[in-house]
Amino acid sequence: MTQPLSYTAEMERKERKIVVAVDESEESMYALSWCISNLIADATKNKVVLLYVKPPPPIYSSFDAAGYIFSRDVISAMTKYTNDLVSSVMERAEATYKNLDTIDVSVERIVGSGDAKDVICSVVEKLKADTLVMGSHGYGFFKRALLGSVSDHCAKHAKCPVVIVKHP
Amino acid sequence: MTQPLSYTAEMERKERKIVVAVDESEESMYALSWCISNLIADATKNKVVLLYVKPPPPIYSSFDAAGYIFSRDVISAMTKYTNDLVSSVMERAEATYKNLDTIDVSVERIVGSGDAKDVICSVVEKLKADTLVMGSHGYGFFKRALLGSVSDHCAKHAKCPVVIVKHP
Repeated sequence: MTQPLSYTAEMERKERKIVVAVDESEESMYALSWCISNLIADATKNKVVLLYVKPPPPIYSSFDAAGYIFSRDVISAMTKYTNDLVSSVMERAEATYKNLDTIDVSVERIVGSGDAKDVICSVVEKLKADTLVMGSHGYGFFKRALLGSVSDHCAKHAKCPVVIVKHP
Repeated sequence: MTQPLSYTAEMERKERKIVVAVDESEESMYALSWCISNLIADATKNKVVLLYVKPPPPIYSSFDAAGYIFSRDVISAMTKYTNDLVSSVMERAEATYKNLDTIDVSVERIVGSGDAKDVICSVVEKLKADTLVMGSHGYGFFKRALLGSVSDHCAKHAKCPVVIVKHP
């Protein structure tokens, strides 16, 4: 019975940090609203970190896999598109929690870049997050999920409890 | 933005029902204490269901796979052992949440029997549970996890958000 008790003592001592991995999906917005409705009880002791992971930047060889040449225009258009996506996702996330009629929450934004599953796990570890909340199907607009489920990986490897939220 | 709002309205209307799958592992007791510390904010609106799934009852052919004969004594000893296990797990679970210095919680016990992953998902669906909480490595003393991860399956198939808690 020692574990649960020491856990509680630790919980009371410090601020709880909850990382919510958001992407372009409705499901991740639902995960965020689940988090606000279910995990946030006391505003002074909770911080929500919205984490969005961009796909890795395009490799600046001018050739793609099929040998086509990417012009600089295409590359800069792609970069702009990704940046617009980040703003759009973060704005939707903020609208989601502002719509919920709850206590004020301290919210921080983090934008990572790279393989979503690795970036999410490493941010969780770096921040010493208490809980990770994410949708089950992400990650993202490009259906990066097809390359292997991000939530599966995080449920196994993230160094904190993981909440997997499915769209109802 | 319609989803989060309708979700909240629903949350306020009814009691929240949280199923915690418990087994013989320390991890599942930790999952229960996580649940009490993190998900239980308002005692009047929360019910925790402790769910323990027994392995399926032995098949009462008198032969096992290797052709050995099980005497009635062995079978009844095995049945008694399983029943003792149920009491022991439930008692540990109750000690765990009573040790936590939190508000009173309404707690119900359910004991199922069969393949843990199927029983857990079907109880969640039957009860229309709002959240399922479980350890990542269970299920149980006999390392039933080796036959395929129960938490993996539930994260994918349970009809509610699933919290996967790892032992720290």
